[in-house]
Amino acid sequence: MNEKIILGHGSGGRMTRDLVRDVFCRHLGDFGPQSMDDGAVLPCEKGELVFTTDSYVVSPLEFPGGDIGTLAVCGTVNDLAVMGARPLWLSLGVILEAGLEIDALERIVKSIAAKAREAGVKIVCGDTKVVEKGKGDGIFINTAGIGVLEHPLTPETIEPGDQIIVSGTVGDHGMALLTLRKGFPLKSDLKSDCAPLNGMISQCLDEAGVKWMRDATRGGVATILNELSEGRPWGVLLEENDIPLSDAVAGVSELLGLDPLYSANEGKVIFVVPRHQAENALKGLKKSAYGKKAAVIGLIVDDFPGKTVLHTQMGTLRTLGILASDPLPRIC
Amino acid sequence: MNEKIILGHGSGGRMTRDLVRDVFCRHLGDFGPQSMDDGAVLPCEKGELVFTTDSYVVSPLEFPGGDIGTLAVCGTVNDLAVMGARPLWLSLGVILEAGLEIDALERIVKSIAAKAREAGVKIVCGDTKVVEKGKGDGIFINTAGIGVLEHPLTPETIEPGDQIIVSGTVGDHGMALLTLRKGFPLKSDLKSDCAPLNGMISQCLDEAGVKWMRDATRGGVATILNELSEGRPWGVLLEENDIPLSDAVAGVSELLGLDPLYSANEGKVIFVVPRHQAENALKGLKKSAYGKKAAVIGLIVDDFPGKTVLHTQMGTLRTLGILASDPLPRIC
Repeated sequence: MNEKIILGHGSGGRMTRDLVRDVFCRHLGDFGPQSMDDGAVLPCEKGELVFTTDSYVVSPLEFPGGDIGTLAVCGTVNDLAVMGARPLWLSLGVILEAGLEIDALERIVKSIAAKAREAGVKIVCGDTKVVEKGKGDGIFINTAGIGVLEHPLTPETIEPGDQIIVSGTVGDHGMALLTLRKGFPLKSDLKSDCAPLNGMISQCLDEAGVKWMRDATRGGVATILNELSEGRPWGVLLEENDIPLSDAVAGVSELLGLDPLYSANEGKVIFVVPRHQAENALKGLKKSAYGKKAAVIGLIVDDFPGKTVLHTQMGTLRTLGILASDPLPRIC
Repeated sequence: MNEKIILGHGSGGRMTRDLVRDVFCRHLGDFGPQSMDDGAVLPCEKGELVFTTDSYVVSPLEFPGGDIGTLAVCGTVNDLAVMGARPLWLSLGVILEAGLEIDALERIVKSIAAKAREAGVKIVCGDTKVVEKGKGDGIFINTAGIGVLEHPLTPETIEPGDQIIVSGTVGDHGMALLTLRKGFPLKSDLKSDCAPLNGMISQCLDEAGVKWMRDATRGGVATILNELSEGRPWGVLLEENDIPLSDAVAGVSELLGLDPLYSANEGKVIFVVPRHQAENALKGLKKSAYGKKAAVIGLIVDDFPGKTVLHTQMGTLRTLGILASDPLPRIC
């Protein structure tokens, strides 16, 4: 096999088949496609499916805590899980840039396999395209995912007094990528929180009456909470003192004047639960390695209808708007 | 709205939402997502689903007979249909290059809407990413598709005497792209055959005992038939005189010394049917505008086990190998 990807790997002919067999199918093993057919035949029970898609264009391809393959599995698994679905099957579409080292591709496919195994999902179908050098950026990945809806959410029942919970420290993924990309000589315990959260979420759903949840990816916690509060007759009030931050993220945020509430997460979920079930929700989350630092960070309030407001450490109130543009492109 | 895509359109914040609403949701209308949620909830009966994915990187983005949006719907719809499934739902993941004109994006989204309408499928979920100028090529599209398996195929029953049918003229898409890209001053009645074939296929399935079918995309008819014959105890014998070619494709092929059997199609299916049902299959295909030139082009034979062989117009026999590399990258 060539050491680098060349255009012929995207021909649809012999070279494509060899690449699919020797790299994708080999490393994915039991978690990969079981035939070279264009599509997968999947058994289905009567009920409701959830279907989602995400493309991943993160730069650089590998970073502390993960790589684009980790993201491509975790991001789509998490999108299904926060819709109340049990993730089952993923598709895998890759766009390779000619010149990509096959060693790098193998590392990424191994990450995909490892995360698929951890999340308990299968990569059932795929597609490989190649573009000329200078027309892509190493590898872009699309994963679409199918899950079975098991816990339909009830955002229409949200009411003042409901508690806002975050499953752990905030802003890790974005800050890790930022310091890596800018080459800041900062202490290196900053790493992405990228993780498949379906196991953790399922434990929380078993314990608490979750009304709404969302993974706080691009745009961070502030943008996700704005999507929750926008157009509603109630508001979201966050307590800055209660928001979990790692020391590393706190340090970088202060140094660079950046707000971790707008920094992307790839392993954190925001939940809305009834006040009397908040303790149960926390207990459920903390059963998972990914939820050890879960905390109540705010509540639904009668005041500030339609808005998300932060009660700051200084004691002031600050409205958090939705992220308008992008402080850091290609974060995922 | 800006006239060109900028990085902020991929932020996941306000600009992304505005673009999704004003371009994607507006043009897709009833055939697009019905919420801004990350995933779609879909009703499902007990049975078998077919799941498939394809990324589209065609260059140029627009060509005679279609554009990358046309391809992105038709390609995935056809992949489902040739698995014996009724296509229902597509996801739509786009990777935009900063600098892409929003007018061009709108034309592409309109093509997506038109083909989704024609095929009777819905675009139920989507994702938008933006990469820097020089890190992509205008737009790359991924569509994953879900269909319900209605006509499981029976390739294990294929036997000598079965007939090979093609649904129309061969090589149109590849030859149209080639002449466009090379700037040949050839007569311009060459155009892509890109079309959603689920309607045509369903009419054929109703009339004939189809054992196997496949759309003859990258690698063309010869590569697809090699995938059929490889490792089997029988061979495929094609009759060159019977292969339908448009005058334009015949002319260009001869002029450039290219074999239309290796040229990509985006609107042609190869069928294997029992001899006694070939006439019914042709009759079914010809009910569709896309199947008017359907023809029997060969048969399954005891000779040449594992191979695909062409009986040429000269009376000789020529083995057709699988396409090794790619004469024309980024054809779809």
